[in-house]
Amino acid sequence: MHVDNLVVVVTLASLLVYFWTSIQVANARVRNKIIAPAVAGHPEFERAYRVQMNTLEWLPLYLPSLWLFAYYFNAIIAAAIGLLWIVGRIVYALAYVKDPKRRGLGFSLQTLATAVLLLGD
Amino acid sequence: MHVDNLVVVVTLASLLVYFWTSIQVANARVRNKIIAPAVAGHPEFERAYRVQMNTLEWLPLYLPSLWLFAYYFNAIIAAAIGLLWIVGRIVYALAYVKDPKRRGLGFSLQTLATAVLLLGD
Amino acid sequence: MHVDNLVVVVTLASLLVYFWTSIQVANARVRNKIIAPAVAGHPEFERAYRVQMNTLEWLPLYLPSLWLFAYYFNAIIAAAIGLLWIVGRIVYALAYVKDPKRRGLGFSLQTLATAVLLLGD
Repeated sequence: MHVDNLVVVVTLASLLVYFWTSIQVANARVRNKIIAPAVAGHPEFERAYRVQMNTLEWLPLYLPSLWLFAYYFNAIIAAAIGLLWIVGRIVYALAYVKDPKRRGLGFSLQTLATAVLLLGD
Repeated sequence: MHVDNLVVVVTLASLLVYFWTSIQVANARVRNKIIAPAVAGHPEFERAYRVQMNTLEWLPLYLPSLWLFAYYFNAIIAAAIGLLWIVGRIVYALAYVKDPKRRGLGFSLQTLATAVLLLGD
Repeated sequence: MHVDNLVVVVTLASLLVYFWTSIQVANARVRNKIIAPAVAGHPEFERAYRVQMNTLEWLPLYLPSLWLFAYYFNAIIAAAIGLLWIVGRIVYALAYVKDPKRRGLGFSLQTLATAVLLLGD
């Protein structure tokens, strides 16, 4: 497998994680009967929505940095840091919906991964 | 015309559709006197805002998937599916502002298009 | 320095400006004790959040247009227009948190920059 393909695989996996956070919002919307266009009204929905929004907020920092890092430095290291981002995002999402106060660990992991990719360029 | 240019044209057309949803928000803000930074206060504004936000939420899934699909498989098929996304997005936007309950058809079209591009990779 | 690198530098600088708007939100959240997942409750926080969101809303219009303009036309002109976007974004952010009514100048600058890049393609 060509190493650049690793970055594509990590990109697609990252997008699937984001897609999964979007599905949680749709599910929470139905389950808690939040009628569109409302984006508030039940704590479970609001948590799921913030998880999706926060993931969305970081995607434009993370994805271009991932690709520029892979292009200018090293695709394998970029893909490895991308995996850290994915793990951080999943830990963040799972912790946040249980208790937003516990979002720190996963958030720190994804922030570290993004910062290394962005500032490493 | 080189086939890759088709993907560029579809990308620019997709961004113009998104740009159009943003202009609807600005217009609804003025028309309904929603003073910034408020993003609520009138149903028409809230619908236009959710249309823009939902389109924004899907762009990072759709655009990278469009390009990776075009690069790894077939640029013409990618562009055709991109056209489906554009049609779905316009149908979704027009239906949503009239009645959010009718957003299903357009949303399904754009979801199908994005899913094929993302999972087809 | 290769001219294409100018576009990379402008891209990274643009992302850092966006990153800075995100940090303002985090700071305003702590300072005004806005407990997650709330995204409202204090004017200072709400302004910082809208600045970040508006910057996020424009990134998918601006960044792909910047790169396509640089690729199809001229990387130096693209980078120069990107600098205008960055200046507009900083002016917008600084004015908005003081008084949202003053957001016009910076917003116009970034809109002009994005429109030239997008419609110039």
